[in-house]
Amino acid sequence: MTPPMQDHDSAELRPYQNGFRWDGVELRPYKQDDAAPYKAVSRQELFAHPALGCQLRYFEVAAGGYSTLERHEHVHAVMILRGRGQCLLADRVRDVKPFDLVTVPAWTWHQFRATAGEALGFLCMVNAERDRPQLPDEQTLAELRGRPEVAAFLAR
Amino acid sequence: MTPPMQDHDSAELRPYQNGFRWDGVELRPYKQDDAAPYKAVSRQELFAHPALGCQLRYFEVAAGGYSTLERHEHVHAVMILRGRGQCLLADRVRDVKPFDLVTVPAWTWHQFRATAGEALGFLCMVNAERDRPQLPDEQTLAELRGRPEVAAFLAR
Repeated sequence: MTPPMQDHDSAELRPYQNGFRWDGVELRPYKQDDAAPYKAVSRQELFAHPALGCQLRYFEVAAGGYSTLERHEHVHAVMILRGRGQCLLADRVRDVKPFDLVTVPAWTWHQFRATAGEALGFLCMVNAERDRPQLPDEQTLAELRGRPEVAAFLAR
Repeated sequence: MTPPMQDHDSAELRPYQNGFRWDGVELRPYKQDDAAPYKAVSRQELFAHPALGCQLRYFEVAAGGYSTLERHEHVHAVMILRGRGQCLLADRVRDVKPFDLVTVPAWTWHQFRATAGEALGFLCMVNAERDRPQLPDEQTLAELRGRPEVAAFLAR
C-alpha cells in the first residue's frame, strides 16, 4: 500500500480553552463592513482547509447583541453551542438553545439575537465560495415588521 | 430589491433533544462495510444541503468503542462535543475533550477511541465529494505499533 501523499505535519489538535476560545485561533471582528448594522459579535475561524470546500466559524453574540439582519444566496448551517436566544428565520422568530440546528436557506432573511441575558454562541458552516450578503431596504423592514412577533424581535 | 429566489419553506430549526439526538435526524449505523473494523459507533447526518459543498455529521463512540482505523485523501475537520477519549493522528496519540478541534489531513491514519469510561461524541465536517477510506495492512499496523504509545492505544 503506497501512500499517494503524506501530509502528517499539518495533523493538529487545537485544544479548547475556557470561554469558547481555542489554541491558535484568532478572535476577529465580526465584519469589516461598517454599513452592516450589528452589535457585540465576535468571530473565530475554526476550520478553513481548502480541501474541505467549506468553512466552520464560531460566532458569539454578547448579551443584548445581535448579528446583521441579512440574506444571501449561500446557505448557512448553524449549530448553537452556547447560551439561549432567538433567531429570525424568514418571517418567523424561533427560540434557540445549545446544540439546536438551524438551516438558513438561500435568500432567507435571518438574524441572531442574544435575548436571554447571556451570550449566544454558535457554529456556522458555509461554502468557501459564497456571495456577499444583502441588507434590507426600508420596504423590506416594513414588511418584516408587519408580523408582530418579528416587530417585537427587531425592537429588542 | 428583487429576490432572485425564495426558499423559505426549507428554513428550519431542528431542536436538540437530550442524549445527543436531534428532531428529525435519523440514527444510522456507522458503516455499511463489514470489512472495516469498528466497535459501538453511531452516526447522525446533521447537515447535508447540496449548496454547502460539505456535510456535518455527529458520530458517537460508546464507552470502550472505537472508530475504524483508516486513512483517505479527503480531510476531516472534527470538533469533540461529548465526553473524553483519545485519537490517533498519524503516529501520535492525543487526549481529547469537549470542543477540542482536530484536523485530519490527507492520507493520515486516524482513529477515535472512547477510552475514558464514557461515550465520546464528535462533529465531523467533510467535503461532500470524497474518496473511500483505506484500511491498514499488516505492515502498516506493525509500523504503527512500533511506537509504544500507539501500540498501547491500539490494544485498549
